[in-house]
Amino acid sequence: MKYGIVIFPSKPIQDKANALRKRYDPHYSLIPPHITLIEAFEADDETVHQLIPELRAIADETAPLAININKVSTFAPVTNTIYMKVEASQAIIDLYEKLQSSNLPANKEYSFVPHITVAQKLSDQEYADVYGSLQLKDTQLEDKIDRFQLSYQLENGSWTVYESFVFGKDE
Amino acid sequence: MKYGIVIFPSKPIQDKANALRKRYDPHYSLIPPHITLIEAFEADDETVHQLIPELRAIADETAPLAININKVSTFAPVTNTIYMKVEASQAIIDLYEKLQSSNLPANKEYSFVPHITVAQKLSDQEYADVYGSLQLKDTQLEDKIDRFQLSYQLENGSWTVYESFVFGKDE
Repeated sequence: MKYGIVIFPSKPIQDKANALRKRYDPHYSLIPPHITLIEAFEADDETVHQLIPELRAIADETAPLAININKVSTFAPVTNTIYMKVEASQAIIDLYEKLQSSNLPANKEYSFVPHITVAQKLSDQEYADVYGSLQLKDTQLEDKIDRFQLSYQLENGSWTVYESFVFGKDE
Repeated sequence: MKYGIVIFPSKPIQDKANALRKRYDPHYSLIPPHITLIEAFEADDETVHQLIPELRAIADETAPLAININKVSTFAPVTNTIYMKVEASQAIIDLYEKLQSSNLPANKEYSFVPHITVAQKLSDQEYADVYGSLQLKDTQLEDKIDRFQLSYQLENGSWTVYESFVFGKDE
C-alpha cells in the first residue's frame, strides 16, 4: 500500500488553496490542501505497524510550530506547478529531518521545499497566466501546525487518513 | 465549523465502495467511503478542544471490533440511497451510544443504522436499476475497526481529518 505523511493547514488556508485548486489542480478531489512531509512510499502492513510508534515519538518531541506564507512560487521550468511557499523555519526542517532519519522507506528524491500546491499540470500558457495573476496578489498567511497525518492511497488515487500524530510539547 | 465522526473501513472495502460511488454518489470526491458515527454538527474551536479528551477516553475504553457486511440495502422510499449494510453488532452500538452520551452537540435526528453509502441522489429509474443489479451480486465482507476519525468540512463541502482516535483495549 502507498503511504504518505502530510500536514493539513487550518481551514481558512485550505479554503483559500481550494479556490485555486478547483480550477488549476487535477489532484483537487484526491486530497485536501496539504504540506507534504514525506512523499508517497510503498510499505506493507508490518512495516507501517512498526513505523507508528516511531512517528508517535517524533510527534511527542515536537512543539507546535508557526508557519508563514509570504508568496506564491513555482517549480517551473521543471514542472508547471504553482504553490504557496511555506517559509522554511528551523522547526519544520527539524521535523522533516527527524522523519527522514526514521525507519521510513528511503525517499529523498527532492530536497525539502515546504509548500502547498495550488496549481499543477498546467499548459505553458495557463501556467504563465495563472502565475502572473497570482504574483500580483498579496499573499500573507500564517498558521500554527500541531500535528501531521499518516495517509494511504486508494485505487482511485485519493488519500484516506490512517492516523494523526499530535505534537506533544507545550500542550 | 462543521465536524463529524466517521470510521474509514480498510482499503479493500473502500476500493469496492468507490467503484460504485464513482458513478452513483455525488459525494464521491468529498470524503472517502465511511461509516458515519456522528452526523455533521456545528461546533466552535473551544467546544472541540473540550471534546477531544472525551473522544480519547471513549476510544481508550473501546476494543477493536469486527464488522460484517452481508448485503446492500436502501433508505428508499425516504431517499434513493443505497448502502452496504454493516451488521449492527453490540460493539458498534455501544460505541455509538457512548459517543451520543458524550458532550457532543445533540444530534439524534436518525436512529443508528451503521452503513457505507455507495449510491445516493439517484433518479427513481437509476435507483431501481442500480439497486436491482447490486442485489443480484454476492456481498460478503468483513473488516476490523480499530479507530474513528474526527473530521471537519471545508467550504467546498469536502472533509479533512482533524484527529484519529485509536482504540485502546487489547492492543
